[in-house]
Amino acid sequence: MKKIDFYFDVGSPYSYLAHTQIKKYEKEYSEKVNYMPVLVGGLHKLSGITAPGLIPLKAKYLIKDCKLWADKYKVKYQFNRYFPIRTVNLMRACLIAKQENYFEKFVDKAFYAVWVDSLNMNDEQVFLKFLKNETPDPELFSIKFNDDIIKKELIKRTNDCFEKGIFGVPTFFVNGKFFWGQDRLEFALNEAKK
Amino acid sequence: MKKIDFYFDVGSPYSYLAHTQIKKYEKEYSEKVNYMPVLVGGLHKLSGITAPGLIPLKAKYLIKDCKLWADKYKVKYQFNRYFPIRTVNLMRACLIAKQENYFEKFVDKAFYAVWVDSLNMNDEQVFLKFLKNETPDPELFSIKFNDDIIKKELIKRTNDCFEKGIFGVPTFFVNGKFFWGQDRLEFALNEAKK
Repeated sequence: MKKIDFYFDVGSPYSYLAHTQIKKYEKEYSEKVNYMPVLVGGLHKLSGITAPGLIPLKAKYLIKDCKLWADKYKVKYQFNRYFPIRTVNLMRACLIAKQENYFEKFVDKAFYAVWVDSLNMNDEQVFLKFLKNETPDPELFSIKFNDDIIKKELIKRTNDCFEKGIFGVPTFFVNGKFFWGQDRLEFALNEAKK
Repeated sequence: MKKIDFYFDVGSPYSYLAHTQIKKYEKEYSEKVNYMPVLVGGLHKLSGITAPGLIPLKAKYLIKDCKLWADKYKVKYQFNRYFPIRTVNLMRACLIAKQENYFEKFVDKAFYAVWVDSLNMNDEQVFLKFLKNETPDPELFSIKFNDDIIKKELIKRTNDCFEKGIFGVPTFFVNGKFFWGQDRLEFALNEAKK
């Protein structure tokens, strides 16, 4: 099987739904997917795309659509009541977790905090409490978090993603091709098997 | 089973893909879907949405995505080489066909002309030849085609569709709920069975 890269932003409900399906896939195939944190707001800006969550009719629809997929997948889910969530700090935190080797658990917790527990990650106190619980070394985290290096890394990763032609998340990238949307994992799998 | 309304525009490749799946569904369930012609350009305008076909990165992607779905469905398909097709005349013609009771066959032929035979329906000569072949009474057709009534009916149908909250095609509407995208037929079916 070829390796699948998974571009995601924790603030995207379809990214959460994709994450639940990847977990099933990883178990079934004993393969790991490569999680690639990006900032979806940055991708949209680069692509000249307005996020569906910011178009009233689409936003109304996507809430219902995500619920249908969550029911179909039989996974826990509630639309975050504080949507849209500004995830720039959360995605920077994911990158620190990557450096410090607690990435997988951290991303999982972040997805559940936003799309199952419906936490208001826009509230600094809620965000800091989450970090306190989920970062093994808060002091080291704090130093890294305030460093320009991590800010630049998130920008670079988002730009690199855009350079591949990708304009949104969740997106699966495998074998030089990309597949946009949690419901396109099947196409990515077919490509990975080629 | 509750009746499913199917909002479509012949110029939309995902509407064609939906059409192929509806044909399977109608056979399997011995139920007819209610085809509702609208002008997708009008819907987008009313909703403040830019069509994916007009956003370069999305347009490039949708060509590949449609091919993946067509292969999955095992249906004939090629992306129309003259895309985007201006379908206002073709959708008016569909409405005349509806009045004159050759709607089902006409819509099917129109979808195939655009998405299998890749005809340039933007070219008046190509369009007129298509009409000549597919309209039983060209003289009556011509009178109706140039009448304001048919123009107004297409506008009214598009406005009525928008009033339901629908912002794009293909869309399935059943039991007061709507489902956007050819890949949401399954959700519409579940709703029809309730």
